[in-house]
Amino acid sequence: MIDFEIIGKRGRAAARELALLSTAKKDAALRLMADTLVAQTARIETENAKDVTAAKKAGLDDAMIDRLILNPKRIAEMADGVRQIASLPDPVGRIYDETVRPNGMKVAKIRTPIGVIGIIYESRPNVTADAAALCLKSGNVVILRGGSEAFFSNRAIAAILSESLRRADITPDAVLFIDTPDREAVMQMLKADKYIDVIIPRGGYGLIKMVSENSRIPVVKHDAGVCHVYIDEGADPAMAQNITINAKVQRPGVCNAAEALLIHKSWLQNAPALLDALAAKGVELHADERIRAVYPKAKAATADDWGAEYLALIMAVKAVDGMDEAVDHIERYGSHHTEAIVTPSAERGWEFVRRCDSSAVMVNASTRFNDGGQFGLGAEMGISTQKLHCRGPMGLEELTTYKYFVLGEGQIRA
Amino acid sequence: MIDFEIIGKRGRAAARELALLSTAKKDAALRLMADTLVAQTARIETENAKDVTAAKKAGLDDAMIDRLILNPKRIAEMADGVRQIASLPDPVGRIYDETVRPNGMKVAKIRTPIGVIGIIYESRPNVTADAAALCLKSGNVVILRGGSEAFFSNRAIAAILSESLRRADITPDAVLFIDTPDREAVMQMLKADKYIDVIIPRGGYGLIKMVSENSRIPVVKHDAGVCHVYIDEGADPAMAQNITINAKVQRPGVCNAAEALLIHKSWLQNAPALLDALAAKGVELHADERIRAVYPKAKAATADDWGAEYLALIMAVKAVDGMDEAVDHIERYGSHHTEAIVTPSAERGWEFVRRCDSSAVMVNASTRFNDGGQFGLGAEMGISTQKLHCRGPMGLEELTTYKYFVLGEGQIRA
Repeated sequence: MIDFEIIGKRGRAAARELALLSTAKKDAALRLMADTLVAQTARIETENAKDVTAAKKAGLDDAMIDRLILNPKRIAEMADGVRQIASLPDPVGRIYDETVRPNGMKVAKIRTPIGVIGIIYESRPNVTADAAALCLKSGNVVILRGGSEAFFSNRAIAAILSESLRRADITPDAVLFIDTPDREAVMQMLKADKYIDVIIPRGGYGLIKMVSENSRIPVVKHDAGVCHVYIDEGADPAMAQNITINAKVQRPGVCNAAEALLIHKSWLQNAPALLDALAAKGVELHADERIRAVYPKAKAATADDWGAEYLALIMAVKAVDGMDEAVDHIERYGSHHTEAIVTPSAERGWEFVRRCDSSAVMVNASTRFNDGGQFGLGAEMGISTQKLHCRGPMGLEELTTYKYFVLGEGQIRA
Repeated sequence: MIDFEIIGKRGRAAARELALLSTAKKDAALRLMADTLVAQTARIETENAKDVTAAKKAGLDDAMIDRLILNPKRIAEMADGVRQIASLPDPVGRIYDETVRPNGMKVAKIRTPIGVIGIIYESRPNVTADAAALCLKSGNVVILRGGSEAFFSNRAIAAILSESLRRADITPDAVLFIDTPDREAVMQMLKADKYIDVIIPRGGYGLIKMVSENSRIPVVKHDAGVCHVYIDEGADPAMAQNITINAKVQRPGVCNAAEALLIHKSWLQNAPALLDALAAKGVELHADERIRAVYPKAKAATADDWGAEYLALIMAVKAVDGMDEAVDHIERYGSHHTEAIVTPSAERGWEFVRRCDSSAVMVNASTRFNDGGQFGLGAEMGISTQKLHCRGPMGLEELTTYKYFVLGEGQIRA
């Protein structure tokens, strides 16, 4: 059993040290981490082999086993990710919203680390390095809880990161790893609100749901992406085709890929060419009756298609009478992640932006741009689908909070 | 029993309307609300009398009954509070962090309402009007759940606000009231994560704890204020005295009042005069041995004094060897709310700001300034003691979130 009192206290103590570290010291540690990951490739591969053997024995499918495998190329890429984070600007210490009050007091906000961040993930083992690097750069302690299928790989990576911290003269407790695959540890972690400031779950629907329902600690969710492309009246056919294909096909397995296509009724004469182009890219189309009237090759959509997160080369297609119906559909079936409109009208584009309650709304651009790197924020922890704290890409800035500070000359309140 | 499916759906539908309202329309509704509260003073007094009678029958103490009473003066003040909120700037629609990406896409953030805000409170009935007005101004639907001791008063105020909304041509569902004193309704509310975006508890320790432990909805807590004043070496005695007295005495029952005083060992010769001045203001002093050595009139502090939120004219007093010990003490016993240092050194002031992990840190100013009005933000929902979403005063801006919007010309991701 894990004793969260001990881990939690170590985390809290480390957080006080981390909050005061200089950018140079954090960056030096990150570069040392990256170099050490590469230098210790053999050690990581040995531990990784234990996970891969167990996964094969357990009968995991080939795609899952492939995601698990770490080889020298993937370890080098992981190290490059860490180096990239070292090169990003440090959000900690930025002073903003400065004002002078009528009584002469200076009031401002300063960005500070959140403190201790708990990450529960079930993705590839490179998340261990990514998440730890993002947390260190933003001055936060990370408590890592990876999936049991990658336990040995994650543990080796976390150990290398901790050892690198010690060599960089930073407390190794800045990266804490839950050293058991025991599931009960997750439940304990979710109750440790004295010691952990935020929980970030990264993984599938079941994980997100379990965390949301059981956590006493604030959660920043990175939930499903049921993203829509809406083709408005008068949309340029070539632009509509480029954006729809890019949003659906460029990387169908990620959260900002489009799952559904809504077409204005006045544009239906252009639909067959667009749908043929999608089909030519291997996309299976599940369409409503109005679409099938102009494009009978599509399968008939069922109720399950609206709101489905396929994460695959399947797309739901529906005709709508206008923006009202498009926005209503998105509100009813979407996941508030990303929507795009293709329209020749700046005014209607803006109306769509205002009316869609999603983390990002694109006018004449692909949904695939809802991404920290694409928005210029650098590496990210994920795309937040909630409204509190941060929405959309969660990068370094979103891994911080602020405090007010006041500089007075003896002012008291009347 | 309350059917949260029905209330929740009404709230969600209303939120879509509210998000698009113009500032002028919201402000007109707020002014109408204020006028109607005054015009219907008699109705409010009649309903309030039911609560007051029940409270007397239940044997509530005089202070609690006084907090419950609404009379024409208090109703007029409540209306003035609503008018003040109408006069504040509207945060919704503000565009910021605009950039142009290398591919020509314009990316920016726009402030939007959070959506549906659930408020669970046990304070004076004027919170009903305050909270509803702040939510309306920031474009949010509010679901109000007040304390059972003020049920009739809260219900009458909420009904007047809803009626005013209808007359202002805004959906009356923008202000929803949980129309039962049944405690089970709170538990249902905390599970309604499909319909409520954030829960704000306002009240005592028991309420905050119950909400934190049971809510599936993100919570913004307004928790205890265990605030410290630290008198650093070389502090000006007059300034130290002014700030300490103001922080402790000016309004002892609020969260930003100071509860503990830490004095640098080199300053102890000045302590008796300061402590005499506090005692003269009626403050009971609970001091450690080093303080009592120079000021034997103080009571001996017990372990319970460190970290106590007295909310009364009592102050814990402790000598410290220096800033390290002061900061350690605050980290161990404080509630991350507000701390103040009195120091002649700008450098040491800044060090204290950096090292204290609190929502506001004051250099040579009273802790009592940690307040939306004092910081220039206008009216506030409370002082957040958590680190996610917002920290310190939660005003109109903090009642909003943002979304990204992208203006493209057909850009797709490579």
